[in-house]
Amino acid sequence: MDHNLTCPLYRQIYDQVKQLIVSGAYPAGTKLMPIRKLAEELTISRNTVEAAYLQLSSEGYISSRTGSGFTVESLYLSNPVIQLDENESSESFRLRLRQTALWGDGTDGAEASLAESAPKVSTLYDFTYGNLEDNSFPSQVWRKLTADVLMSEGSAKASYYTDSLGERGLRVQIANYLHIHAGVNCHPAQVVIQGGTQPSLLNLLTLFDPLRDVIAMEQPGYDGVFSVFKNNRFKLFPIPVYKSNDDFIEALYNSHARLAYVTPSNQFPTGKTLPLAIRQRLLRWANEENAYIIEDDYCREYRYNTGPLPSLQALDHNNRVIYMGTFSKALSPALRLNYLVLPPDLLFEWNRQFDCNYAGVPWLTQAVLEEYMKQGYWDKRLRKMQTVNKRKYTLLKSVLQERMGAKIDIRESGSGLHLLVGDLMQRRQSDLVDLARREGVLVYNTNRYWISSRHPMENYVLVGFSAIPECSIEPGIEALARAWYGL
Amino acid sequence: MDHNLTCPLYRQIYDQVKQLIVSGAYPAGTKLMPIRKLAEELTISRNTVEAAYLQLSSEGYISSRTGSGFTVESLYLSNPVIQLDENESSESFRLRLRQTALWGDGTDGAEASLAESAPKVSTLYDFTYGNLEDNSFPSQVWRKLTADVLMSEGSAKASYYTDSLGERGLRVQIANYLHIHAGVNCHPAQVVIQGGTQPSLLNLLTLFDPLRDVIAMEQPGYDGVFSVFKNNRFKLFPIPVYKSNDDFIEALYNSHARLAYVTPSNQFPTGKTLPLAIRQRLLRWANEENAYIIEDDYCREYRYNTGPLPSLQALDHNNRVIYMGTFSKALSPALRLNYLVLPPDLLFEWNRQFDCNYAGVPWLTQAVLEEYMKQGYWDKRLRKMQTVNKRKYTLLKSVLQERMGAKIDIRESGSGLHLLVGDLMQRRQSDLVDLARREGVLVYNTNRYWISSRHPMENYVLVGFSAIPECSIEPGIEALARAWYGL
Repeated sequence: MDHNLTCPLYRQIYDQVKQLIVSGAYPAGTKLMPIRKLAEELTISRNTVEAAYLQLSSEGYISSRTGSGFTVESLYLSNPVIQLDENESSESFRLRLRQTALWGDGTDGAEASLAESAPKVSTLYDFTYGNLEDNSFPSQVWRKLTADVLMSEGSAKASYYTDSLGERGLRVQIANYLHIHAGVNCHPAQVVIQGGTQPSLLNLLTLFDPLRDVIAMEQPGYDGVFSVFKNNRFKLFPIPVYKSNDDFIEALYNSHARLAYVTPSNQFPTGKTLPLAIRQRLLRWANEENAYIIEDDYCREYRYNTGPLPSLQALDHNNRVIYMGTFSKALSPALRLNYLVLPPDLLFEWNRQFDCNYAGVPWLTQAVLEEYMKQGYWDKRLRKMQTVNKRKYTLLKSVLQERMGAKIDIRESGSGLHLLVGDLMQRRQSDLVDLARREGVLVYNTNRYWISSRHPMENYVLVGFSAIPECSIEPGIEALARAWYGL
Repeated sequence: MDHNLTCPLYRQIYDQVKQLIVSGAYPAGTKLMPIRKLAEELTISRNTVEAAYLQLSSEGYISSRTGSGFTVESLYLSNPVIQLDENESSESFRLRLRQTALWGDGTDGAEASLAESAPKVSTLYDFTYGNLEDNSFPSQVWRKLTADVLMSEGSAKASYYTDSLGERGLRVQIANYLHIHAGVNCHPAQVVIQGGTQPSLLNLLTLFDPLRDVIAMEQPGYDGVFSVFKNNRFKLFPIPVYKSNDDFIEALYNSHARLAYVTPSNQFPTGKTLPLAIRQRLLRWANEENAYIIEDDYCREYRYNTGPLPSLQALDHNNRVIYMGTFSKALSPALRLNYLVLPPDLLFEWNRQFDCNYAGVPWLTQAVLEEYMKQGYWDKRLRKMQTVNKRKYTLLKSVLQERMGAKIDIRESGSGLHLLVGDLMQRRQSDLVDLARREGVLVYNTNRYWISSRHPMENYVLVGFSAIPECSIEPGIEALARAWYGL
């Protein structure tokens, strides 16, 4: 890198990376060094590196994928073979392979440093959150129901623009399910089918005004929702959930919020369950302040020791609650299907707003899911997933306690699909994630769920159990104990 | 209706409608009189009627569906039998059955008056726009491919949160298709899979600022897009497409817009094709003003007499064009799948913005469509649809000219899936729609495509041919000629 050449810096980077790609030194699938990192190493501005990468991207040499930085593309229009060449390092730019997030918010440092320090350990135990176990999707049943639906008379609908609120029959099924399993009192007409938490919130937000309406957001809280609010320029008021319940309610009153986003069944990520008395106070707040509550009941299905508390929606007599549910945690996150239960006045606004809109979810997905529910498969699936995850939860907790009980703090309330595990030695999560990685164990950063970079739970990592097979839990936690405490 | 009773007016309406429903006088599926209409008939405010309907809706007696007003619900949580009782009229409120839009923008008067004046004529010929012919969806192939995909190794993806930009393989297929059929120069990495025009624009708009960025919008133009811009509080600057091309370009320069939404292949609804020279001027404008152009190429597939012009994207050397395409017009509107081709800098912004987001379209839909394209079904389908629609277009135009040539003005440019037909007697479209309906012919209002209620094409209606079977075109137009001119 020569700062004194007449050729602009970005062009020098562009030329050299391009040369490495064209020569085959960087085959398809190679991950480029993150912009920030490369800028630091070359002591140049990020914009310069960005410009080079964008130029390469616009010409198709590389591409960026969410959460995994820039990757070298195949030079031909065909499915590239993704080859991760672990020895791929460049002398000229030291563009080494990294498993890093390019667009991270500063919380990706942990993974970045890990990839450098322990590039040769492959992952054996992935305690990720959100995904389900490999091949747990009911493919056979789905195939059969798809065939039935496509060969039925109803398949004429494939030629039409369909109802923007969703298929009537599916809404009936969901209303029934919610009535029985969540005590949610709603008419099918209030159930609006959507294509996931984020699109549904994006739509919902168009009924509110970013210049006027403040949103109260749990702190810590789900970053996927936080980003939707932020992208739409709403002012956010953090409501601490790591302090006392009184602090929680007091902060709500101080927020002057028009909307509050909460996860009462299983606060994400702390795992807390909001007590009944606080639910009542939350509803009182909404009623007094003329505010709405978004109750994200994303994980209601999983409650292992006690019965669930009534949902806020069930307790609400003043139409202040927007209930939100999903099929991602018990059926398939790749289905992209969730739903809102709107109070009547918002349903009215919604209809006015989306008058010209079409269905947000493919008709076929909806029609097959309707049959899946109607024919009892959903109930069976739910019971099975509840049983499996209860076993995994119980095992994970007992192994954690057995192996490292005296050295860790576990945050959970007998529900959900993850635990938070804190290190009593107060090491920072980046170090904990790093150490685990060296033993082939993936546990996850929780900094991303905090608005501020400093917070009282810096020594906690997320340990999920929805995706890891049951048989991997014990050896995985043994490896973690070795990694963290040399046990 | 007694204005002097102590019981509030809204409550009186509520009680009486409820009584009619509970008694069975209004069975499930009955459509209630639109709010505006009922308010007029009772000479009370719309808010009063609204309040009553909303109360009934919140209690589940009725529900509102986009575009079709309030409908009586089944009183049980099961699939209601939708019974349209044509004789359903109430003495007390004269809540007759109507086929009217409840949330219309004032352009629904036509249909409302029609339903009153000719309630007994059933529709024989529906020249609607957008939907495809009944049962034209390739159900057999789709069923087979779904089975293949679900039984393949790739089906593990059903258990994961998948790429927010879309499945890699589908993006490759689309990039290939665009390269061959639209001259669009893009790398698969620039293709972003989305769940329809509206969701994709809603996402795109989060990269812009409603307080600062003006959007230039064709006038007349597609109301479905217009409403997305409006709902997100962007200032709109109308660009006339019904005047000269110089006026068009001049308006663009006056707009100081940051974004321009255009439909150059087949301007919706006028059917005009933007000439090459004007495309170049449009691109020059974007480059000079540092603006972006949304090229909605929703109907590129259908061009009947000449080859297509190069897309704006193909002509653009400065990365100013956001190309948008869809599978709705040639495969299925119920698929809910479209795509954007983003220029590199916007792709960069998009990735930053949607870092935390998940796929906008179900994995299965994408995977099946990928196979559909890869195995050549899409090319075959396209050719078939082009052949069928060329025949329908040619027939429709020749029958229109033959039957009413001297009395009408046809606006089209040998492309798309509709014509605009103007009455040289200058009758207003509401009357034209009304008269047609009396003969069992549905043609469509175009007022909704205009921002202002007064405009120079008030005597034009939309006549679509994507959904009507070929054999119905001639008798349908004959009926229209009878209806309009007594021919």
